[in-house]
Amino acid sequence: MVCMHPFDEAIDLRVFATHEFTGATHPAYANMVGPFGGTTAAQLLQCAMLHTQRLGDPVALTVNFAAPVADGAIRFVARPVRTNRSTQHWIIEAHQTPNDISGVVATATAVFAVRRETWSNVEAVMPANVFAPETVPRMPVRGMPAWPQRYDMRFVEGAFPTAFDEQEQAHSRSTLWVRDEPERALDFASLAAISDSFFPRIYVRRRRRAMIGTVSLTTYFHADSALLTQVGTNHVLGVAKALNYRHGYFDQTGELWSQDRQLLASTHQLVYFKD
Amino acid sequence: MVCMHPFDEAIDLRVFATHEFTGATHPAYANMVGPFGGTTAAQLLQCAMLHTQRLGDPVALTVNFAAPVADGAIRFVARPVRTNRSTQHWIIEAHQTPNDISGVVATATAVFAVRRETWSNVEAVMPANVFAPETVPRMPVRGMPAWPQRYDMRFVEGAFPTAFDEQEQAHSRSTLWVRDEPERALDFASLAAISDSFFPRIYVRRRRRAMIGTVSLTTYFHADSALLTQVGTNHVLGVAKALNYRHGYFDQTGELWSQDRQLLASTHQLVYFKD
Repeated sequence: MVCMHPFDEAIDLRVFATHEFTGATHPAYANMVGPFGGTTAAQLLQCAMLHTQRLGDPVALTVNFAAPVADGAIRFVARPVRTNRSTQHWIIEAHQTPNDISGVVATATAVFAVRRETWSNVEAVMPANVFAPETVPRMPVRGMPAWPQRYDMRFVEGAFPTAFDEQEQAHSRSTLWVRDEPERALDFASLAAISDSFFPRIYVRRRRRAMIGTVSLTTYFHADSALLTQVGTNHVLGVAKALNYRHGYFDQTGELWSQDRQLLASTHQLVYFKD
Repeated sequence: MVCMHPFDEAIDLRVFATHEFTGATHPAYANMVGPFGGTTAAQLLQCAMLHTQRLGDPVALTVNFAAPVADGAIRFVARPVRTNRSTQHWIIEAHQTPNDISGVVATATAVFAVRRETWSNVEAVMPANVFAPETVPRMPVRGMPAWPQRYDMRFVEGAFPTAFDEQEQAHSRSTLWVRDEPERALDFASLAAISDSFFPRIYVRRRRRAMIGTVSLTTYFHADSALLTQVGTNHVLGVAKALNYRHGYFDQTGELWSQDRQLLASTHQLVYFKD
């Protein structure tokens, strides 16, 4: 019997044709409606990771969520539009044919690169004096959609509200330990998915119901393969905050830190909301 | 005699075919080699702005700089890949044929939207007690490439170093007033360009020479047309800082504020560097 981690099942793609892959949504990463956007982002990235023409590792990924992804099959088209000596640029599309009408449900661009050692420095500030993950209780996931159950989230600050009591908060900042559940060694695909695991800031801020949907998600990968290997299955520290809410859209920004204070990724997203 | 602002000349595109436009680099926005990336970003955005199928105004733009843009003609292909009731998703490519070899030099994705009034709030913090732009001297531009001469930049903090004295600074934060020079009323295209006008943070931080090149630039437009009209030709306040430098890449993040404390745009980029 071969047991795959559900995340590996979720990002398991098949080569369909030159530049084309097929995959599907996975019930273990279901959201309220359709799949968790983080798995879709990881699938889009995985197309380039699996492509025979891939050069290097991802340094930047932008995913635009163009339409609701329906549960079921997804067809991906991944084209390396420019390959230079040490960088490679991708355009990736996700297509579905609900009601037999073919349509783009997500697009992505990615930059891959062969990296070399240089002067390195962290200018962002990792939160200090954060309790170790073992000492912070895991967020209860009972009653939640499937995807948050696939993460072990331990909130130090700014947890998802336990009740929508409409008590508006002064800010939306969250600090939490997070890892895959069950444990899984961190890689680029899971880092891409975790980048979308920060709950929409408007819930933390307003503690009231709202319709939301991420429209664009950008992640910069500071970690290379060696650093990811060092992290392994350990929790990483996530920090997220909103910048601005205005006329139906807000943006939020996040950082993912290793326990030895390396910034693994920074991530930004624009979210549609209806209040 | 008709006098166009050089920025309007720089983003002046011609319809070439369905989904295709032609444009060119402009000497007024030349960089050390090739054009200022901000004008390329603005041209890519402008394709969607000018497209007969456009819906709404831009809310998100990601530009990937795939190869050096050569001085001369650029062919743009702009496809609205998904149009929903209130949002529209674009993939846009810039092509050049140096040495008769056709190639993609930049790609972009954009999200456009029809916005409506909602609860709005600024969570990011605009720097306080900043001197008014009239009281801050303009950065001298003599000896600089053409493009910084097309901006009136007034640094409150973190100016471009006057000498590469290799005195490493504790951080790379800059705060500056900026507007087009000559004056020009702010619009989406110029806001996109100004988002790329923050000097690479590594120069501010390390005060030494380095080869750099932006590989990916994302801008979220919080301003809608009405807010841009309010800003008009006034200076906006730019704030920028780096997050992390590692193995050949660093990321920097910026905010552009109106004088009446509205966040007009937030912007993020990943920059290649060689030290």
